[in-house]
Amino acid sequence: MIGIFDSGLGGLTAVKEMIKLSPDEELIYFGDTGRVPYGNRSSATITKYACQDAAFLLSKKVDAIVVACGTVSTTSLSHLKKTLPIPVIGVVEPSAEAAVKATKNGRIAVIGTAATIRSGAFEREIKKLSPDSEVITQACPLFVPLVENGFVQEDCEITRLAAEHYLSKIRESGADTLILGCTHYPIIAGVISKVLPNVTLISSGAEAAKKALEVLGKKESGGCGSVSYYVSDDPTMFVSNASLFLGGEINGTVEKININEY
Amino acid sequence: MIGIFDSGLGGLTAVKEMIKLSPDEELIYFGDTGRVPYGNRSSATITKYACQDAAFLLSKKVDAIVVACGTVSTTSLSHLKKTLPIPVIGVVEPSAEAAVKATKNGRIAVIGTAATIRSGAFEREIKKLSPDSEVITQACPLFVPLVENGFVQEDCEITRLAAEHYLSKIRESGADTLILGCTHYPIIAGVISKVLPNVTLISSGAEAAKKALEVLGKKESGGCGSVSYYVSDDPTMFVSNASLFLGGEINGTVEKININEY
Repeated sequence: MIGIFDSGLGGLTAVKEMIKLSPDEELIYFGDTGRVPYGNRSSATITKYACQDAAFLLSKKVDAIVVACGTVSTTSLSHLKKTLPIPVIGVVEPSAEAAVKATKNGRIAVIGTAATIRSGAFEREIKKLSPDSEVITQACPLFVPLVENGFVQEDCEITRLAAEHYLSKIRESGADTLILGCTHYPIIAGVISKVLPNVTLISSGAEAAKKALEVLGKKESGGCGSVSYYVSDDPTMFVSNASLFLGGEINGTVEKININEY
Repeated sequence: MIGIFDSGLGGLTAVKEMIKLSPDEELIYFGDTGRVPYGNRSSATITKYACQDAAFLLSKKVDAIVVACGTVSTTSLSHLKKTLPIPVIGVVEPSAEAAVKATKNGRIAVIGTAATIRSGAFEREIKKLSPDSEVITQACPLFVPLVENGFVQEDCEITRLAAEHYLSKIRESGADTLILGCTHYPIIAGVISKVLPNVTLISSGAEAAKKALEVLGKKESGGCGSVSYYVSDDPTMFVSNASLFLGGEINGTVEKININEY
C-alpha cells in the first residue's frame, strides 16, 4: 500500500500516473485542503505540516510515502527521510533525472512555488547529475491560485499573461527542457507550452509516481486496485475539483480528518 | 484594549484606520498567516479557525474583538457573538450602513471571497436597512492571491484583466456603490476604480474600525497607543508585506504563536 500526500489537489497528478502504470496498486491519498497552499509559507511551517501529513499516512500502515508536493519535496524531504521508518519518495530526484535525460542543449529551467525556488533543491540535484548544465529557475506564485480557481483553459488570457510575466526570462535563456516543479502546473501545460513552444515539459508528479513504482516494484496484476482519499476540509469541494487533475471522476471514498491529531 | 484578527494581512486596513482615528488606542492584532487564505474553505473550517483566533485574543484580555475579515464576518459572526463574553464587531453591518448612506440610485454591489458571497450576509444586511435596494454580488477569488503576490500597481495588466473578468457584470448593472467585502481589496482600489469609474468604494475594514470606536468610545488622548502583532507563521514575511496595508512600516512587536493551542 502506497501513501501519497500533497497540500491539496496537485498530488492527484501523481495518483493519475500511478493508476495508469499500476492499476492494481492500493493507494491512500491525503490532501491538506484545510491548510493549502504551502508554497508561500515559511520552511518551519511547511516541515511541521509535512510531518503531520506523513504521520497520518503512517497511521494507515502504508509501506512507502510519495511526497507529491513540490514545496514539501524541496523544503522538508531530508527531514522526512530521517524521521520516517519507511521509504519516502519526493519529486526532485526523479524530475531532475528525467530533465537531464531529455535536454539536448544542457539548459534546464525549473518553475515552482516561492518556497521551492528559494530552497534551490532542483538546481542542486540537476548539477549533481550533470555539473555542466545551466539551470534557470523562476517562482510562479500565482499559478496555484489560477489553477485552483479554474483559470485553466488554453485560451485564458489572464493565465497567459501570468505565464508571459513569469516565463519570458526562461524563453530568453533558450532552455529546451522545463521541470514543472509543482504538481498543480501540468493542468496549465497548454498555456505554458504556448509561451514556451518547443520546450519539453517534465511533470514532477508523474515522475515521482514512476520512481515510486520502480523503487517498490509494480504490483502483480490480480490485486484489487483502490484509492482511499482523505482531506482536512469539506470533501465536497475536493470531489468537485478532483476530475481536473485525475482526468475523470474520483473512484474511491473521500473522508475528512482532523490533521492536528497527528 | 481592542483585539483585531484576520486570516492574514487584510485586517491591517482596519488597524490603519483605527490608528488614524484613535492614535492612543492599545491594539492587539492576530493574522493567521499559517492558514491563510480562508475564502475558499468550508463554513465549518472557517468557524473552527475563527474560534481559535478569537480565543487567542481573549487570552490577551482584550475588551472587544474586531473581526477584520470579510470571510469570517459573513460566515461565523453569529457563532462568535453567541460564544464570546465581549463585544464582537464584524465588517458586514458597518459596511452595509455606509453603502446604504452612500448610494444615490439604490443599486449596491458587493464583492468578496467565495465563502463571503455564498453566505449572502451582505445582501441580507443591506435589504434589512433598505428593502428596495438592488444588490449585485460577485465572488472574486483571485483578488487575494493577486494582492498577496504584489500584483497591485494601478497599471498591472494581469490584475486589470482579472478585475474586468469579475466586475463587468457590476458595471452593466449600473450600481453606483461597491462594498469591498474583503479587507485585502482596498489595496487594489485603483485598478477596481479603473474598471468601475464613478462608483463609490466602501472599505469594509475601515468601516469596521470606525464602528468599533463608535461602540467602544474613542480613548481619551493621553493613552500610550501601541499595536502588538501576532502571526501563526514566520513574522519575516508578515513584516515585509505589512507596509502595503498600513501605508508605512510596522511600529510594534511581531511574534509567532501556535494557534492550535487555542
